[in-house]
Order: sequence, then structure tokens, then C-alpha cells
Amino acid sequence: MPRRLPSSFRRRLRRLFPDDRLVTDPALLRAYECDALTHFRSPPLAVAFPETTGEVQETVRAAVAAGVPLTARGAGTCLSGGAIAADGGILLETSRMRRILEIDAENRRARVQPGVVNARLSRAAAPFGLLYAPDPSSQTVSTIGGNVAENAGGPHCLAQGVTSQHVLAVEIVTGTGERVTLGSPLEETEELDLRGLFIGSEGTLGIATEITCRLVPRPESVETLLASYGSLPDACRAVARVIAAGIVPSALEVLDERTIRAVEGEKGEAGYPLDAAAVLLVEVDGPEARVASEARAVEEHLAKERPLRVERAVDDAHRARLWKGRKGAFGAMGRQAPDLYLQDAVVPRSRLPEVIEAISAICTRHEVTVANVFHAGDGNLHPILCYDSRHPGELERVLAASAEIVRVCLEAGGTLSGEHGIGIEKRDHMPELLGAQELRAMGHVRSAFDPTGLMNPGKLLPTPGACAELRAAGRGAR
Amino acid sequence: MPRRLPSSFRRRLRRLFPDDRLVTDPALLRAYECDALTHFRSPPLAVAFPETTGEVQETVRAAVAAGVPLTARGAGTCLSGGAIAADGGILLETSRMRRILEIDAENRRARVQPGVVNARLSRAAAPFGLLYAPDPSSQTVSTIGGNVAENAGGPHCLAQGVTSQHVLAVEIVTGTGERVTLGSPLEETEELDLRGLFIGSEGTLGIATEITCRLVPRPESVETLLASYGSLPDACRAVARVIAAGIVPSALEVLDERTIRAVEGEKGEAGYPLDAAAVLLVEVDGPEARVASEARAVEEHLAKERPLRVERAVDDAHRARLWKGRKGAFGAMGRQAPDLYLQDAVVPRSRLPEVIEAISAICTRHEVTVANVFHAGDGNLHPILCYDSRHPGELERVLAASAEIVRVCLEAGGTLSGEHGIGIEKRDHMPELLGAQELRAMGHVRSAFDPTGLMNPGKLLPTPGACAELRAAGRGAR
Repeated sequence: MPRRLPSSFRRRLRRLFPDDRLVTDPALLRAYECDALTHFRSPPLAVAFPETTGEVQETVRAAVAAGVPLTARGAGTCLSGGAIAADGGILLETSRMRRILEIDAENRRARVQPGVVNARLSRAAAPFGLLYAPDPSSQTVSTIGGNVAENAGGPHCLAQGVTSQHVLAVEIVTGTGERVTLGSPLEETEELDLRGLFIGSEGTLGIATEITCRLVPRPESVETLLASYGSLPDACRAVARVIAAGIVPSALEVLDERTIRAVEGEKGEAGYPLDAAAVLLVEVDGPEARVASEARAVEEHLAKERPLRVERAVDDAHRARLWKGRKGAFGAMGRQAPDLYLQDAVVPRSRLPEVIEAISAICTRHEVTVANVFHAGDGNLHPILCYDSRHPGELERVLAASAEIVRVCLEAGGTLSGEHGIGIEKRDHMPELLGAQELRAMGHVRSAFDPTGLMNPGKLLPTPGACAELRAAGRGAR
Repeated sequence: MPRRLPSSFRRRLRRLFPDDRLVTDPALLRAYECDALTHFRSPPLAVAFPETTGEVQETVRAAVAAGVPLTARGAGTCLSGGAIAADGGILLETSRMRRILEIDAENRRARVQPGVVNARLSRAAAPFGLLYAPDPSSQTVSTIGGNVAENAGGPHCLAQGVTSQHVLAVEIVTGTGERVTLGSPLEETEELDLRGLFIGSEGTLGIATEITCRLVPRPESVETLLASYGSLPDACRAVARVIAAGIVPSALEVLDERTIRAVEGEKGEAGYPLDAAAVLLVEVDGPEARVASEARAVEEHLAKERPLRVERAVDDAHRARLWKGRKGAFGAMGRQAPDLYLQDAVVPRSRLPEVIEAISAICTRHEVTVANVFHAGDGNLHPILCYDSRHPGELERVLAASAEIVRVCLEAGGTLSGEHGIGIEKRDHMPELLGAQELRAMGHVRSAFDPTGLMNPGKLLPTPGACAELRAAGRGAR
């Protein structure tokens, strides 16, 4: 790929975008060289800030004509490198496409531009008693467009489901510059589900330019419980009991000892007990009478695994305090180490305790500090690997440990990612998960939307070269 | 298309299938000329009964080599003509692929062959306290493979979601004879969602040969309520109240006056009140304490729209009686008229009353008797049009009324089908719902799986010819 944009394309961009919506100064472009997966870096050759679907179409057509790769970027909070420009490519930044176009309270849906920040949609829906359910930890900054690209989840997605369950329709611009609407504002449709296909496709099929979201009623009542345990397996067994009883809490989160210490380290703001090896945060919400009875049932199940303590939030301030530890876990770990690598994998719920133990052993062997925070209800692990990139060899050790963690999760019948996406980070692990024929099918489908392969190339799917090798290798692990 | 199979292909079939698994006798083939959409008929030139994925692969490869179209068929209960052979084509009947391969109770999933009957899976899961949630009215005969093809729903899919939410992975044979696994047994995956794409694709992308289903816990407790109202809009308003309160019952069904009379006509087995203009059947299920409080809340909401009567099932026999009316509605209407045409469309819940009224006016104008049974919770209408095909002109009047009903639903912001699929029935309405670019995108995706277009051609998507006209016409309604 050329390290400079073709001059005709550069001129085309200048005609399309005024100066305040186009960045080409190399010094400024450095700010866009990575997303939240900070150890991959690739500065774009330009960043354009479209305001309309038409501008996105024009840019895609121009990029395709010039053979320039193109990556859409929301807030850049992607943890798998999905929002990094390809070598020789440009970024389309969606922060100027931030209008909430419609809130249809009666039919409980909203139409938004892709750059609308997740939490802002819920705030806008609040006066109607509604909210947008998926709540990634990044929700105060991450955009709905980025959430769609990564099929984002969050602590409250256990009962509610991830982004794919909350996006009814997406208008996209394909890799040929066509404007296509996938899905329909109605909950049920019987067409070919291109909407579901697009969600989580990480920009490889096209760019979302308008999104119709489902809104859900704000729960009438919420109960939040914190149980602390003397061992992590005890906490996992308590999770299993709740699930086995047919209760689906809105959230079911586990934090391990190291995370508790980090969270409580400075000001002890969440009030998590320092003698616990694990805390389990459980939330149930819904109509008042149901929540009351469910909270009682949860409490009984938690009690059966000999907790050190069970605490129930008495009011919203108390609830906010209990959540503060969970929501601040990543930040707290960041105060312990200059660099963090946040992993993401899913294993069958029943294998959680052994996998956590294996992760701990791997990290000990590689002399890497690890803390565990996880969505226990659906087996979605988030080991946080701590390191200092200034120390030679530390990043390498972290990456080696990380690759082993991925392998252990796959061997336990798990998958590569729960909610952070594949991106650049795990692209080359895909052949461990999928066979050559599966990857080929994905490649064919991708080509149906993006025949030139210029839409966010190098993300999600192994490169064609890797695919060819695969074909020789014959098959994958599944 | 030739009205005879190429003789080389015929020989190939004979080598692949023993005599008892291949039907070629024209007299016997008549039994396969239609599915439950009885006014479309097209006898296949052969019916093969594969037992293994390998046999499906061989058949697909042979059919493609010979240019013979191929349609998979489960129990033939499809209401949109999806299981009818194409002109000059053959059927692959899945009734010999009826093994339940695995029930993994701990991780709540089952692996089945496509010919397994829906209700049989739930029976097999019962000893583990589990069930397969989607419950199409056809569930005692329809197959999981057919349910996947049509993304089937059912009365209890309001809270639980339709087939797509309950199928974790599908092994398919593509239109090139490749065996590909879509999705993964885990609940969360972050790959390109080819699984979701396949579900509801009506055989146009390939043939499902193995399906991994999610199982859910049998509810600890169930409460069933029947409220009768003096007018249909009252019943609809009661539905709106329940939904607005944030309650998601497991089922929320409305039957109109004509249906009530038909159901009660002979033996009055369901005990629906004959003075009612509509009955509303509501079921809530889950953990005991929650169900008790939710049933009370539902009862209060139902009471606010001046019901003639509200009845609560006191035991399972009583519950079965209340459901008997709903489940037997189609059969009861069948005793009123020799032929029925069961429509299926979805409109925004808020537009239900006016759309029902419009349907009634359309049918009066065309002198067609109509009864309405509908999944009110999600706006999924099922007008039942009654006719006698022996009377010249009756079918034509029904089809004219039906086309107008579809148009009224689309104009109300609705869609073509809630759960019966597009098939042959509504294929030519697709351009009213989707624009040329949307249909083109679907065509491209289809070609990625089935480059020769021999997999169930003529279903779901308008034919290439129609598509070309569309391109000229420019755009659709949305």
C-alpha cells in the first residue's frame, strides 16, 4: 500500500469536506493511530468527518475508485483494534453524525445517526420512561455505530441481550457506495436477516449511517445484591444456582480478589470487603412485585454457598456505590500498572472455575499480573493483564500469555470473543475456531457487500493469503 | 424446465438411494405437490429421503451438475409454499433424518437432525426439566429443520423469541455441496452471524443437516387468564395496558367473535363466552413468586377495560381447556368452510384495532368470510379467510382480498410475514416492502451460498426477471 494518498483522491476529499471536517496533518493524524487496543498502531493518511449519508456514499465511491482502504470510527473505544486504519487507508469519523432523528415512544423505538453516544440515547429516552438496553462499560463515550459494528454487550445484557437484539434496522453504505436498509422497524420480519449479519461485522460489509434502535421500559423496580465469598469457585457455584433456578438477573458480575483490592485500594469507595476472594454483584429489575420476590429467591441461593456476607442496596446511592467498584474496575487496575490488556472470551458457564484457574497458572508462568472481572451469567471472561510497555519484554510476555488464554478458552469449548469483537487482535486466531469452509463462506458473503475488499480490510476475517494457506491446511478446530 | 429428470441424474439418484428411500412414481408424487398453502401446486419429479449429511451433499452435487432444482421438505406444514418443488425439480424429504443426537442438560442445548419433530424435542428434554421454546401451532408434526427454514414462531414466542433466538448453530450443505457450520453452541459469538442469516432463508442458501438448539428451563409456575370483552378494540386496549406496564407475558392471544363461535360451535369445549366480541388469552410463567405477582398485575390491567368476565385457570385441566380454543381455532374454522387461507402479517401494535377493522371491510367488500386470531403482543395478525374452491370465483375473491390485506398492513407500517415466511405466497409482494438495492443485496448474499440458484428457487426472493424489472422501476415502498 502507498504511504501517500493518490493525489486525485486527496483532491476529491478536499472538494467533499470543508477544512474543519478533514484532517491530513501528520501530527494530528497521530491522535488516530490506535483505538483502545493500544499495542496496535497504524496512523491513517486522512480523517474525514461526514455529516450525511450522502457524504459517506461519495467518500466510499471515491476511495474505491482510488483503491484506498476505508475504516469507520466512532469514539475509538474498540478493544480489538477494529477502528484502526488499514495501512495506506483513511478513517471516516462519525462524531458529526450525532443527531437523534426520532424517538417514537408509542412503538418504543428510536432512529439515530451512528455517532450518537450510547448513554445519550438512554438519556433522551428517559422522559418517555424508556431506555436503550445494551450498556457497554464504554457507554458514556462509545457510539451506537461502533456498538453496532462490534455487536457490543454490557453488564445488563444478560437478561436483555446484546446489541443485535436491540437494533431493528440499519441503513448502510456498502462497499460499492450503495445505500441499503437492512431489517425493518418492526420487531418481527421474515426477510433474509441481513440486519443481523451486519451487526458485529466490524465495518467489513459497509458503514452504518442510520440505526433504528429498540427501546425498553425503564424498570419499575431494581434490587442490587453484593455477596462476598472466601473463594472464587464458591462465587461461581452461587451463579450456577441462580441460573439453575430459572432466574435471569439483569446483571450477574464477578470480581476477583486482585480486582477488589485495586478497587478498594485508594478510597474504598465501593465498600467491597477486603477479606473476600471474590464478590458477586447481582441485579434484578422489572415490575415491583416480581423484583421483590426474585431478590428474595436470589438471596436464598447466594446464601447456600457460604458467603462471607450478603448486602442489599437500601437506596439508589447505595446501589450506585456497589456498581462503582464494577464500573471502575478497569480504571482501578489502570492505576496499578501503566498498561493494560483487557481480554475477552466466552466459555461454557460450567467450565468457568477451571478456566479461571488455568488463566491464573498461565499468568504466573509468564510472570504477568492478572485480575479477573467477568459477566458470570453468560460465561464471558475479561482477564485484565497488567504490564509496563517501557520494560523490554513485558508486552511480549503479555501477548504470549494472552495467546495461551485464548487457546485454553477454545479448548474448554469456548469462543474467541464475547463482546469486544475480533478486529485485528484475534483475526489470526479465527482458523483455530473455524474451518476453511466456514471462513470461505464468510469471505463470499463479505464480497457480496464489498467486492473490492476496501472496507476495513484486515479486520475480523483472516487476510486472503492466510485463507489460502488455510485451504491447504484443510480444516479448523471445531 | 424439462418435465422429466435428465436420465443421468435419475441414475445417480438410484445409485444414491435404495428403492424405499426414493419416490419417482407420478401417482405417489402427487402426495407431495403442495404444502399447507394448498392453492399452489407443483408435483416434484422425484422425492429422495436422505439419512445422512453425506447423502444430502451427494444429492446437491448431483442436482447442481444436472441443473435440477432442489427443495428440502420437513413435514410439509409450511403455510407460504416454501416446501413446494420448483418446476422440474425434486424434493429432499428429511423424515429419515430424525435422530436427537445429544441432549447436553448442563449447558442447556440439544443437537438434532433436521427431521426431528418440534414437540418431540421438548418431550425428550422434559426429564431434564428443559424444553425447546418455539411452539408453532404445527409443533406436533412440523420439524426443527422446517422451523429453521421459516424462522417459525408460536404463541409462546412473545417472551421467549422466535426460532432464531433458540438455534445456536446449524450445519448446512450449501448450494455447492459444501458442509459448513454456522454459529457456535455458545450463546454469544462474535463472528459474522451467518447462523442468523440462514435461519428464515427458506432453503435458498442451502439445506440444514444438523441443528444445535438452545433449551430453556420448564417454568416452575404457570398462570393462564381468559378475559372476554364486548368489543375487539377493548381487548386490544387491554393488551396495550399489559405491555405498557412492562409485563411480558409468555403468551398474549386474541380471538374474535367469529372464531369464538366456531370454536364453541360444536361441543363448547373451551368454554369461551358466546356473548363476547373478543377473548384475550394471557399466560405468564416463570418462578412461582414472580408468576403470582405478575398474574395479579395482569388481572388488574385486564379489569380496566371493562371485561365481560375474567377467568383464571385453577388447574392444568382448566388451562388445557382454555388453550383448546386457541389451538383448535384453525381446525374449527376448517369445519365451517372446505378451504381456508391463513394469512400472516405484522403491524405496529398501536395500529391493531384500525387494521382489524380495515381487514373486516375488505372481506365484506369481496364477500369473503374472515375470522381473526392473533398474537396481539407483537402485532402478528392471522386473518383466516374461508372459501370453497369448488365454487367458481371464490378463490379469486379470496386472493384479491388477501392482496388488499397485505397492502393495508404494509401501509400501516407493517411487514409481510410474522412467522409463516415469504415462500411463493408473498414473494411477489417483496418489492412493495423492499427497494431494488435491498433485493439486490439479498440476491448477492444468496449467490454467495448458492451460485447456480438451484436451491429452492422461486421462494423468498423475486425471480431474477422480476428483479430486473425492479431495477428499472427504481425503488420500493420503504
